[in-house]
Amino acid sequence: MSKIEFIPNLPESDKKRVVVAGGGFAGFKLIRKLIGRGYEIVLLDKNNFHQFQPLLYQVATAGLEPSSISFPVRKVFQKIKDVHFRIAEIQEVIPSQNEVVTDIGRLKYDYLILSIGANTNYFGQNEIEENTLSMKTASDAILIRNTILEHFEKALLETQPEKIEQYLNIGIVGGGPTGVELAGALAEMKKYIFPKDYPELDLSKMRIIIYEAASRLLASMSEEASAWALKYLKKLHVEVNLNTRVEHYDGNCIRLSDRSIVSSKTVIWSAGIKANGIQGLPAEITGRGNRMLVDRYNRVNGFANIFAIGDNSLMVTEKYPNGHPQVAQAAIQQANLLSKNLVKLDNGIQPKEFEYNDKGSMATIGRNLAVADLPFVKLHGFIAWILWSFVHLFLIMGVKNRLLIFLNWTWNYFTYDQSLRLLIKPKPFLKEKNEVSCITPNELIINNN
Amino acid sequence: MSKIEFIPNLPESDKKRVVVAGGGFAGFKLIRKLIGRGYEIVLLDKNNFHQFQPLLYQVATAGLEPSSISFPVRKVFQKIKDVHFRIAEIQEVIPSQNEVVTDIGRLKYDYLILSIGANTNYFGQNEIEENTLSMKTASDAILIRNTILEHFEKALLETQPEKIEQYLNIGIVGGGPTGVELAGALAEMKKYIFPKDYPELDLSKMRIIIYEAASRLLASMSEEASAWALKYLKKLHVEVNLNTRVEHYDGNCIRLSDRSIVSSKTVIWSAGIKANGIQGLPAEITGRGNRMLVDRYNRVNGFANIFAIGDNSLMVTEKYPNGHPQVAQAAIQQANLLSKNLVKLDNGIQPKEFEYNDKGSMATIGRNLAVADLPFVKLHGFIAWILWSFVHLFLIMGVKNRLLIFLNWTWNYFTYDQSLRLLIKPKPFLKEKNEVSCITPNELIINNN
Repeated sequence: MSKIEFIPNLPESDKKRVVVAGGGFAGFKLIRKLIGRGYEIVLLDKNNFHQFQPLLYQVATAGLEPSSISFPVRKVFQKIKDVHFRIAEIQEVIPSQNEVVTDIGRLKYDYLILSIGANTNYFGQNEIEENTLSMKTASDAILIRNTILEHFEKALLETQPEKIEQYLNIGIVGGGPTGVELAGALAEMKKYIFPKDYPELDLSKMRIIIYEAASRLLASMSEEASAWALKYLKKLHVEVNLNTRVEHYDGNCIRLSDRSIVSSKTVIWSAGIKANGIQGLPAEITGRGNRMLVDRYNRVNGFANIFAIGDNSLMVTEKYPNGHPQVAQAAIQQANLLSKNLVKLDNGIQPKEFEYNDKGSMATIGRNLAVADLPFVKLHGFIAWILWSFVHLFLIMGVKNRLLIFLNWTWNYFTYDQSLRLLIKPKPFLKEKNEVSCITPNELIINNN
Repeated sequence: MSKIEFIPNLPESDKKRVVVAGGGFAGFKLIRKLIGRGYEIVLLDKNNFHQFQPLLYQVATAGLEPSSISFPVRKVFQKIKDVHFRIAEIQEVIPSQNEVVTDIGRLKYDYLILSIGANTNYFGQNEIEENTLSMKTASDAILIRNTILEHFEKALLETQPEKIEQYLNIGIVGGGPTGVELAGALAEMKKYIFPKDYPELDLSKMRIIIYEAASRLLASMSEEASAWALKYLKKLHVEVNLNTRVEHYDGNCIRLSDRSIVSSKTVIWSAGIKANGIQGLPAEITGRGNRMLVDRYNRVNGFANIFAIGDNSLMVTEKYPNGHPQVAQAAIQQANLLSKNLVKLDNGIQPKEFEYNDKGSMATIGRNLAVADLPFVKLHGFIAWILWSFVHLFLIMGVKNRLLIFLNWTWNYFTYDQSLRLLIKPKPFLKEKNEVSCITPNELIINNN
């Protein structure tokens, strides 16, 4: 193997270099807070945009465009001289050399921040991984949208009832926020949109089914929230199967833990996440859910200059012996504190211990239907839905995105019509040809500049 | 070969069936005008949306989302009982049986309307086709956007000046409206956006170059318009090479007719279109540019019940001995008249001969810079640009699309910032598994409905 080169064109300065791997809620917030504190910051992410994941399910259900919930990284840091961005995936840390290895080359760091998040967890079930759709990225959401539209079009070409139902049925594995929100939004499409778009199909045959292994939906929320979510989903004619595991899925037939079988060509897997890992760190730092064990300052166990924040970190505290929930709030709070602690550590000042402050959680099931667990009150129905809408509109980055989402939501609310039902089939990138110099000795060269 | 089945689930009624192949400007307009006249209409298109092509270049240059210029077919015809839509590509006509063959099955027609449009013409140059980007569909436009963003990111990883320039340079082949509008929009990105997004790149090295084989740009417009377009492009630092053909392109190096060579990894081919063809019709009906020869009622030569309208039709008249220009206006006018003529022909009434009424043409080069040839006046500059904006906003279908485009344009105008610079890498569709029944005799079946 040839020696991997260093990533070129990054300035060598006297400033300490903070390498941030991952531009999700944690990484992005950290950088924004660290600007102007005298560091050279390098952000690595496999995408050139920051994404507001909580609204991803609306992209999957044709309510929003990915661009409305995404923000180009370069735009955010346009005027910031000390922030450098590269599209790259981090592959390995070499702590002894203070280096990371990425798919575009090596990189030295003074501080390394691992905010690499989490990905779908299939629990080792390869056939399920191969045949189900996931819901973690904008590409995933668009693929769900396209697949559902494609399957409806195919249903029109079938004459056997079982085949038609196989195309129409949608199975959702996992009754957490993603599964519940997706099921609710699909149920509303079934109610308001599909019958108008597909008058030739008998949509009473379409089933939207949630499979949840636990005994209640939204296990991370209160019992009340779970009960209301179940009630709302039933009202929207979503079938909810609790205490039910999906044991096998081959792309056509779902086999459940009670050995019953359901026909469906569309199964969305949102049954769990697994922290993204990285080579080069000792096995002992890996805890539950593949998360990295960190101390109260988010330092990865045993390292003075490697930090993990957000979904891929695991901090054991008295209040949270199993680690904090893997939610945006925790990621943002850790990033906020770390931005201050880093400066303190750098100056030999005692940093502050992190403690998660749970400000509550919310999930929306449908039009006027949501649940919210706040520190002092539990809400449901219209008021929770309004609160959910305002909070999400407030949290999304950028005035234009807010405007677009507000416009879309208002439009969809009054017209009962998510209009982004376009099946745009992606074209693959052209194959890049081996890099060659265009200057060949036998050719007459005129550079018409 | 097994016998191809008929497309299922289409009603058999007493009404005459009009099969419309292609939902572009021509096909879409025809159907909208034919509704309520007693026909059963079947629309076949390979996409489930109608697209406003004139603004496609703004999708390619990150100014608009594809959804803003597209309209779901099913949404438009939601309440129309007599219009049926299938995603399908027409492959062959069997006139003797009044049948078409498509990729989803066969179909009987009483009247067949071929509004299948035109595609990029590479004039048989396979290597150019393989290595250049085209600009005919939403997928094409998104691919151009993604490729340019990807190439900029790759330029950051290079150290050799020639390689960097190869990634930054953009060649555009063809100086028609598509080439000119694209070049102008890219030049504005080079001026206002790329320097802010990529402060690490020396963008003075980036070249945007048009190659046009003819002696002027916008050959279909007036000499004045050509001259102004050239002036505006030069003002925006676009290099314009007239009387220049691209003879060879291998993905890295453009070889021109004067044998000079230019380095570029991004070449957009907009040098010509070729009407889409169809099997089963006699060779004699094919005219210039692969267009189908039609009479003054748009009947394909020699056939009483097969019509061609829009870009793929060729009607020779005294005023237009080479056929009408392949523009939206001509397509819409033909569709309008045919909707009336069809009813007349059906009732044995003498139809009306078509005559193209040229209402003028426009092209926009950049901010406040456009050219317009109207029947009685030629405009350029700010006034032409305002006119262009209003006309396009007026012509696009749907209140929401108009709102979104207006919002985007206004935003971009005042912020100098097209913000859709997201490199969303498409995921391929899951492989569909052979259709199987989920009901197997050895399994216990509980259908938990």
